[in-house]
Amino acid sequence: MKYSIGIDIGGTNTKLGTVSDSGKVLTRTTFNTTDYDSFDSYMVRLIEEISTLVKKSGEECKGIGIGAPNGNYYKGTIDMAANLPFGLEAPIVDRLRNAFGYKHIYLTNDANAAALGEKIYGGGKTYDHFITITLGTGLGAGVIVDGKLLYGADGNAGELGHVCAVEGGRICGCGNRGCLEAYASATGIKRTFFEMLAYYNGKTSLSGYSWETINPKIIEDAAKAGDEVSKATYDFTGRILGRALADFVHFSRPSVFFLFGGPVKSGELIFAPTRKSMEEHLMPVFRGKVKILPSELPEADAAILGSSALVWSGIANEA
Amino acid sequence: MKYSIGIDIGGTNTKLGTVSDSGKVLTRTTFNTTDYDSFDSYMVRLIEEISTLVKKSGEECKGIGIGAPNGNYYKGTIDMAANLPFGLEAPIVDRLRNAFGYKHIYLTNDANAAALGEKIYGGGKTYDHFITITLGTGLGAGVIVDGKLLYGADGNAGELGHVCAVEGGRICGCGNRGCLEAYASATGIKRTFFEMLAYYNGKTSLSGYSWETINPKIIEDAAKAGDEVSKATYDFTGRILGRALADFVHFSRPSVFFLFGGPVKSGELIFAPTRKSMEEHLMPVFRGKVKILPSELPEADAAILGSSALVWSGIANEA
Repeated sequence: MKYSIGIDIGGTNTKLGTVSDSGKVLTRTTFNTTDYDSFDSYMVRLIEEISTLVKKSGEECKGIGIGAPNGNYYKGTIDMAANLPFGLEAPIVDRLRNAFGYKHIYLTNDANAAALGEKIYGGGKTYDHFITITLGTGLGAGVIVDGKLLYGADGNAGELGHVCAVEGGRICGCGNRGCLEAYASATGIKRTFFEMLAYYNGKTSLSGYSWETINPKIIEDAAKAGDEVSKATYDFTGRILGRALADFVHFSRPSVFFLFGGPVKSGELIFAPTRKSMEEHLMPVFRGKVKILPSELPEADAAILGSSALVWSGIANEA
Repeated sequence: MKYSIGIDIGGTNTKLGTVSDSGKVLTRTTFNTTDYDSFDSYMVRLIEEISTLVKKSGEECKGIGIGAPNGNYYKGTIDMAANLPFGLEAPIVDRLRNAFGYKHIYLTNDANAAALGEKIYGGGKTYDHFITITLGTGLGAGVIVDGKLLYGADGNAGELGHVCAVEGGRICGCGNRGCLEAYASATGIKRTFFEMLAYYNGKTSLSGYSWETINPKIIEDAAKAGDEVSKATYDFTGRILGRALADFVHFSRPSVFFLFGGPVKSGELIFAPTRKSMEEHLMPVFRGKVKILPSELPEADAAILGSSALVWSGIANEA
């Protein structure tokens, strides 16, 4: 069976697996990224784990895809990733090519990998123009244009978490203020909750929760039980996100947005205000035409699927 | 000499000409769009004018490119253009194909044509990722990605004049509020001037001007002579435009923006605040990397050049 290897490198864990060309995960494994204090020592372990998986999965390995924070597609290097001890520029593609000799080895950031996963195995199969938005600690995005990932002049296109949502607004991890991800993300929802709690003078069933103990799922459950502060939190999140999605439609006119991540599981609590705000902010010519849907990738395997999709996408682009 | 025909259809004038593959305008002519009250009668005249130009320019005509408001690239029709008496859907590409038989006949909107003109004949020749912004009555834009125009799912991508610049802001011609073109355009500059005049309580050398008599060039000259209200007008325009450009960088990571139109001729008066605001609003990773330059197309021929470029671009895409 033809398959590819998907590797997702996170600050805490590295997940990898082999995936058939139809999107079935054949094998998988995980190890702690934090066990290694240099790129060299990390690579010894990674190469070992890949070799083990290949032995189990057979001869027909078509290549390796890697999703990593600050992964640069054009250069094949992981550049200054804040949570990885890899230094300025870690040449992961070259190292893997030397170790395994595969022609098709590709690297990109995790959000772009998610978009390719959706394109190759998920809800994006039939669309040439779509955008995936991952609501996690931050907001990650991948933009598909004419069936291909949009990389831009230096491989860093699609940084949609850092468009300006509120001029002079909340401090963002990137150093700027008012970025979309400071509002529309799991962290953003938490921040909004405390603003709303302040605004409504603590009138919420969640007044006993601290910054440490609250999370979007608790706020979701309270909203569904009728808590006003919690409902206002999700409404506000959707309003900000929907306006940003409208701007993205004006830019690349996707057919659909696929949303991924914890907060998306709240269903209409986030989808309804997002859809309403997007429609309100669209030029009339675009109204009623662009869908907002949940991702069709299974959450547990999404990272491995997305990374492995880089291989099929790369082979298709070169054909 | 190999050449193509470029047609620019405006509400007032129709300009057309023949253009060599190196961008030399060989012949040109103009007639009043307003002389015709139906698409059929308009097409009789247009076909006549094209035939005359082809007779003068010789045998090697490679095709026709048309730039028109609401021109739809995928369908080849001009759809519900507000200032043209062409009805719901005017099949201009089919009509020209029946009349002339050329294989390469393409239609797009005027702002997209300008971007292709920049790509084929202008400052964009050496760039695969750039965006052109035309500051006129409105704000038109064309987005080049991987060397090609970004059309999106229905041919209407690149409506950058209608991203939300100010939530709940100025009324826009599209029916929405706060659109970028209500601020960053020749009309937007005029609107800003009157806001600034109100804010500064009329303390400007231009206090004798009315809405009817003022224009961006008069405000430019006053700003250069030291008028505070006029300077504040251009500063504010640049601040709004620069923030929008930053958002566009986060989306498609162009190497350069090319600005076109009357207000661009004011030079640093508009470029300096735009550049400053763009840099301030960019994620650190993008700072100092994206240029903002004036278009290199000659203004008088830009419309014909842009439209004619559609032919060479279409031939390249099919190769």
